[in-house]
This record gives sequence, structure tokens and C-alpha cells, in this order.
Amino acid sequence: MIGAGSVATHLSLALQQSGHQITQVYSRSTESAATLAQKLSCSFTTNLKELKSADFALLAIKDDALFDIASQITLPLAHTSGTKPLEVLGSNKQCGVFYPLQTFSKEVHVDFQNIPVCIEATDEAFLSLLKEIAHSITKKVQLLNSEQRKYLHLSAVMACNFSNLMYQLAAEICREQAIPFELLKPLIEETASKTQTIAPLDAQTGPAKRKDLLTIEQHALLLQSDAEKKKIYELLTESILKRS
Amino acid sequence: MIGAGSVATHLSLALQQSGHQITQVYSRSTESAATLAQKLSCSFTTNLKELKSADFALLAIKDDALFDIASQITLPLAHTSGTKPLEVLGSNKQCGVFYPLQTFSKEVHVDFQNIPVCIEATDEAFLSLLKEIAHSITKKVQLLNSEQRKYLHLSAVMACNFSNLMYQLAAEICREQAIPFELLKPLIEETASKTQTIAPLDAQTGPAKRKDLLTIEQHALLLQSDAEKKKIYELLTESILKRS
Repeated sequence: MIGAGSVATHLSLALQQSGHQITQVYSRSTESAATLAQKLSCSFTTNLKELKSADFALLAIKDDALFDIASQITLPLAHTSGTKPLEVLGSNKQCGVFYPLQTFSKEVHVDFQNIPVCIEATDEAFLSLLKEIAHSITKKVQLLNSEQRKYLHLSAVMACNFSNLMYQLAAEICREQAIPFELLKPLIEETASKTQTIAPLDAQTGPAKRKDLLTIEQHALLLQSDAEKKKIYELLTESILKRS
Repeated sequence: MIGAGSVATHLSLALQQSGHQITQVYSRSTESAATLAQKLSCSFTTNLKELKSADFALLAIKDDALFDIASQITLPLAHTSGTKPLEVLGSNKQCGVFYPLQTFSKEVHVDFQNIPVCIEATDEAFLSLLKEIAHSITKKVQLLNSEQRKYLHLSAVMACNFSNLMYQLAAEICREQAIPFELLKPLIEETASKTQTIAPLDAQTGPAKRKDLLTIEQHALLLQSDAEKKKIYELLTESILKRS
């Protein structure tokens, strides 16, 4: 396991729990490497020249570091990035992608069972190996090429990071008006939960969907002292209106 | 029950199930009135002059119609609107607000138990009655004045309608690239579910949160043929960067 951050930690624990052996943890930081290695009861190193032999090295590190680190490793390689193409790992060895599509926070437990893992590889043998490993931790294994994966990652930013920003903006308004943010939690859950059964377009509700221009105007007035939220409100309302 | 739309239907069924008697359904449309009245096994009318006696009339109708309909009813009144003030119901009778904060789709079953109901009234006696009724269908009863309720509704539009728009934008990108939207569903659930335990600001992940400008630039490139999505991407990314 190359890396000891959030993805590396969640992923290596899940892999170990499903019977795979993590031979060694590498991280630039001794503390991070030691912490994860202890959780896995395996050895660690901060020196890429001391990597032990293994079926392959799994790179769960920052996108920017992939090229540099990959070029120093002679083992077959797979990375966990949503955005980087297969080729970033080099061209003279077996390469693959093992991309778990989820938002990982170190403190929050993650059940891999339902997390899609998107895989890709330079050859059939390595693809088979990655597929087998993916199936051992999740029911949802998806073959995607590098181009599709980039778009999937972009979609995930919208569906996940941008939704979370909407929760944040709502929380800010509640705080300013002394309204408990708690009140919104069931609504947030229900909105997300609806996507499991109906398409987002059909699930849409609210003033823009109803073309209720009076309410929209009043909302814009409530936001007149907050230029940023007002701009976001108007742009997203316009976008829902267009689709209604 | 004045109204026979989505809110009126969900609410009157929940009220009846918890032991309250819906005396009569009013709707301008005979078909809507009859459909809901049949579900409730009660009578219906399309004529406001034929309203039966009751403790109060609950107006679950369009915001724009509240003033006009309220002025024709002599019973005590409560409305279910998130945006309209108490005063829209008139000044010469007992008035109240009974605002269930949830997104109602006719086809999707709703469990009221966890839906916050925000109440307000012109006098203590009516407030007590509304509070008692609210407590009979939900654990979450919240007193809010008309001003706070307007802001809560605005927050709900952001947390719910705008999040759903983000799901929709993601679904559009997936469709264009032949990626199954299914892949994003666990991520959507997890993102919403995190708000139950950690603040949205702390839960944020992704390129903007990491200040990963390279990925942000690449995403903008992927969107260069879609001016609307590109504008939304840039505005929301800017907003996350500001908060990171």
C-alpha cells in the first residue's frame, strides 16, 4: 500500500478484512506509515528503494505525486485516482486503476459492500486480478476507461461536494436566523434517498420547479445582503426553471 | 382540509391515522376533492359556502390562493406554507401556521414521525391546539415565527431543491458519457447521511476543498462545451475554495 491517508486507510483495512495480505505500507511520513502499519499489523517504510515484493503496489496518494512515485517502483502498479489516466503510471509495466467511488472522512466508518469500484488495466491478466480483488470487497464492480472515469469524477464532485456545499449554505442561513439546522436533516436524507427510486428530474420540487416567481423574488430579497448566496440562488434557480 | 394536492393528501392521511377526524375536503376541482375524500372516507365540496363546522380549517393550497380563500372562511384557520406570514389569513379570527418541512412527491410514501412541523398562532389557545395535533403525528415540533419560517424555507430550497439539481446535473453528464448513474447513488446517500453526524463544513471533500487547482482546471475543460454547467461548476467551486 503506497500512501497512508484516508483512502489508503479505509481501503487497506477493507482489503485485509476480506482476506488479502497487505505486505507493507509506504508513506513519506514515518508517523502516517507507522500508524497505518500498526492497524494492519504489517511492516512499513519511508524509502521506496526498500519496497518488499508483492503482486502489485496500490497507489492511494495525491494525484500530483502519482507520476513521480510510480516511476520509482518496478512492481505492477494500480492507482486509486478518479481523474488520472492509466498512463500516468508509466508504459513499461502492468498498470491498472482501482477507483473506489466514495467520500472518505477519516472519522466516519465506511462499508465497502455498496461502494462502486471502477477498474481498468493495461492487460487482461491484471484486469482479472483487479476485478477479483474488487469483487472481494464490494458487490459493485464497474469497468470504465480513463475518459469515462474523469467524467464520473466530475459528476461525483457535483452530486457530492456541491450538494454538501448546499447543506453548508443552508446551515449558514439557519445559524444567522437562530433556526436549528436539525430541522433540515430529515429533508436532506429524504432528498438523497429519493434518487434511489426516482430520477432527479422527476423528484424535483420547490418554487423554481413550480415556476413560483413570487417566492423566488422574495427569496432573492432575503439574500440581498449576501451577494454570494444571492448569485448562487439565482443561477441554480434559473437552471431548475430551464428544466421544468 | 382545504386543498387536495400532495401536501393535503399526505397530511390529512397522517392526521386521520393518528386519530383526528377530517370532517370534509374542499378543492376547486371535483375530481381532486372526491379522490382525497374517498381515501379519508369523508365528504367533500367544491363550494366554500358549504363548509361544515370544524375546530379549524387547514389550508394546504398554493401560496397565491391563501389570501383569497382565507377571506371566504369564517372558521379558525391554519395554513401549511413555508413562505407566507400568519397575517395572510386575515386579522379578525384565530389564525395559525402548521408547516411540515418535507419534500412531498405524490408517489413516494412519507413517514411523518421524523418530519419537523413548525407552528405559530395568533393566540395561546390555538397554539396549544396546533402543538397537540403536531405532536400526534411527529416527534419534532418547532415554534417558529413568520420571519424565521421564511428563512427556513429558503434554507430548505438550498439544501433540498438545489442538491437535487446537483444530482440532476451529474445524471446528465453520466448519460452523455454512457456511465451508469447507479454508480453515484451510494455516494449521494453517504453525503446526505454525513450531515446527521458532522457539520457540512467539516464533511466537505473533493478538489476545491483540497485546493487541487489542476483537477479544477481539468473539470472546467471537460465542461467547455456546456456553458451552463461550467458556470455552475466555477461559481460553486469558488464558494468551496473560500470556505476551505
